[in-house]
Amino acid sequence: MRAGPSQEEVRRHNLGTLLRYVHVHGATSRAELTNRLGLNRSTIGALTADLTTAGLVSEAAPRETGRAGRPSLVVRPESSRVYSWALSIEVDRLRAARVGLGGRILDRRETDRPRGMQVLDAVQPLAEFVHEMRAGVPDDTRYVGTGVAVAGMVRRADGVVRLAPTIGWVEEPVGAALRAELGDAGRLTLGNHADVSALVEHSRGAAAGCDNVIYLYGDVGVGAGIIADGRRVAGHGGYGGEVGHMVVNPYGRECSCGSRGCWETEIGEYALLKHAGRGDQSGREAVLGVVDAAMRGDSQAQFAVRQVGEWIGFGVGNLVNIFNPEAVIFGGTLRDVYLVAAAQIRSRLNAIGLPACREHIRLRTPELGDDAALIGAGELAFEHLLKDPLIN
Amino acid sequence: MRAGPSQEEVRRHNLGTLLRYVHVHGATSRAELTNRLGLNRSTIGALTADLTTAGLVSEAAPRETGRAGRPSLVVRPESSRVYSWALSIEVDRLRAARVGLGGRILDRRETDRPRGMQVLDAVQPLAEFVHEMRAGVPDDTRYVGTGVAVAGMVRRADGVVRLAPTIGWVEEPVGAALRAELGDAGRLTLGNHADVSALVEHSRGAAAGCDNVIYLYGDVGVGAGIIADGRRVAGHGGYGGEVGHMVVNPYGRECSCGSRGCWETEIGEYALLKHAGRGDQSGREAVLGVVDAAMRGDSQAQFAVRQVGEWIGFGVGNLVNIFNPEAVIFGGTLRDVYLVAAAQIRSRLNAIGLPACREHIRLRTPELGDDAALIGAGELAFEHLLKDPLIN
Repeated sequence: MRAGPSQEEVRRHNLGTLLRYVHVHGATSRAELTNRLGLNRSTIGALTADLTTAGLVSEAAPRETGRAGRPSLVVRPESSRVYSWALSIEVDRLRAARVGLGGRILDRRETDRPRGMQVLDAVQPLAEFVHEMRAGVPDDTRYVGTGVAVAGMVRRADGVVRLAPTIGWVEEPVGAALRAELGDAGRLTLGNHADVSALVEHSRGAAAGCDNVIYLYGDVGVGAGIIADGRRVAGHGGYGGEVGHMVVNPYGRECSCGSRGCWETEIGEYALLKHAGRGDQSGREAVLGVVDAAMRGDSQAQFAVRQVGEWIGFGVGNLVNIFNPEAVIFGGTLRDVYLVAAAQIRSRLNAIGLPACREHIRLRTPELGDDAALIGAGELAFEHLLKDPLIN
Repeated sequence: MRAGPSQEEVRRHNLGTLLRYVHVHGATSRAELTNRLGLNRSTIGALTADLTTAGLVSEAAPRETGRAGRPSLVVRPESSRVYSWALSIEVDRLRAARVGLGGRILDRRETDRPRGMQVLDAVQPLAEFVHEMRAGVPDDTRYVGTGVAVAGMVRRADGVVRLAPTIGWVEEPVGAALRAELGDAGRLTLGNHADVSALVEHSRGAAAGCDNVIYLYGDVGVGAGIIADGRRVAGHGGYGGEVGHMVVNPYGRECSCGSRGCWETEIGEYALLKHAGRGDQSGREAVLGVVDAAMRGDSQAQFAVRQVGEWIGFGVGNLVNIFNPEAVIFGGTLRDVYLVAAAQIRSRLNAIGLPACREHIRLRTPELGDDAALIGAGELAFEHLLKDPLIN
């Protein structure tokens, strides 16, 4: 319970609000900012001037509007001058990008990650990517921080990956290892891959404008980023959203977490490939192979997709009763399965979801695709700046 | 995205913050308020004066402190002068209370509710209780509003009960029916029974100080009020928290909702009584009978309690992975079962819950017991006042 803010706090809050607005929405006229932020014109002018001086935004006349009168100046984020490093550690690949303010990917690198790769072996190529890209960064730029998305449970305070069953890491000091390799990279923040992707789809993607969202990401495992009333459901230690380990089948298969019948044992990569008679394969290409075969009429592939679709609908139905969301987004390989199994998913979801809990729900695929994790990792770094633009 | 508040908004916010503080924490010295709310002494003095003039708080010298110097005045909510009507519609009973500011129950009434009772038959005794209690209300008092807790899914906007399977109501205009019976009672707000109980246990009960809480309430069905990062997980339409209809056993029994194997079919009253060989009984007394028999060594009762305990732990494990809560509170008949089945519950929860998700979890029984629903119903009415004390 806190009392109201001081005038100086209000000004700093307003600076952050304006910068966040153009960061998320892109170039915006002063007139629209006045309107959207509920501040008067002179306040918007003063805030914009401060942010311009700090090199965070720039102002310019808009393109010809065809209307009479002096046009409102357009404020845009300095995407090419203010940037973060964004890293993503996934089951099958390692990615790095330079992300400009406004969420623009300015440069990127990617390499395969063999399953079973250890932390130090993963950290090195990521650091090399950063060193490579750094060589191409113009002089007149400002580095804000580094964000890392990891397909696992991350303790934000110190960047320890507590558990990443699909990657095979337990209690690994990934943050410290990256800090050592990156040298002067300074501020480094780790987050969960599904969480950061969810926030990006929520702020500027498939769930823009929705306050209650479940973003599911599948590969070998299944994770979720959950937004309730506009905010991430993080939980006490930041480990919320582990829906892949919601047990849906008490009589099901053993899971990599040690439990049995977890949702990801029924809808993850292994389940799909096994149902399709392709248990010897693995990886995204193999999943896409089953989905393609199902679309071409292969009956075993269709069986596999139906089976997995049923279980997807089952778990989504449970989550719908718990969260009453507006949107459920299917990311990763769940996106591909959703596209061919939408009917099964919807039908099972309708059987389990209570009418009031599911009545306004929209099932969607991601708008930003796999870029969401990189943009989201960038957001982890920008967050400090957006909170207090002139200090951080 | 909103810009900062005006000075007048800050003052009103501060009035609400101070009033909410003493409403939740009871009598508090000006010195402590200064400290807790981060405002200076003269601001606290001015706010207290405004609230005193409005008849919402009173100030008095504290009891002898034994310390030298002028003691800080103590501010307390006007519990006996400012009140709401609080109603609770439950599976087996109807309750009404007059609740004073500060959450003090000043008067109360209760009657049985035969299962199958229709809306109009339930509304009438509640209205009579209010009329009765109203006759005893002193002159110099202020009525704030009426809050109603219902064991079902409620649309707050118009007070329609969308679905209350355990009560047997579907799309019933309970708010309108109550308004018609109560006559001049004015502002009326409905909420879900588990939701409002959760908020009270969170603000002043077993989960005070915890920001991530799951409050479970069981009788025939099972509902939850879920607090994430200090706020209720309401969902898009306000129907979140229907954990009783999370399917835990795909091969389980039919549920009153039309689905199969919902959590409440495994841990609700019917399951316990059936396992105990007492399928012909029903109600809370019958549940307590099984729990007592188990404590006295009756083997079939012990079997029943173990079975239900396993399934309680199972579902709690799922919720722990999804929410990473600090506290899980067992209310209603789940409280009684928890007290004899804590070992099973903990063991199954530990097997399903990921270590990071359950590492700081505390399992608890409610502090406010069944009063939570009445105090919580009162909160629905006080909420308007606390938001803007001098307007509402």
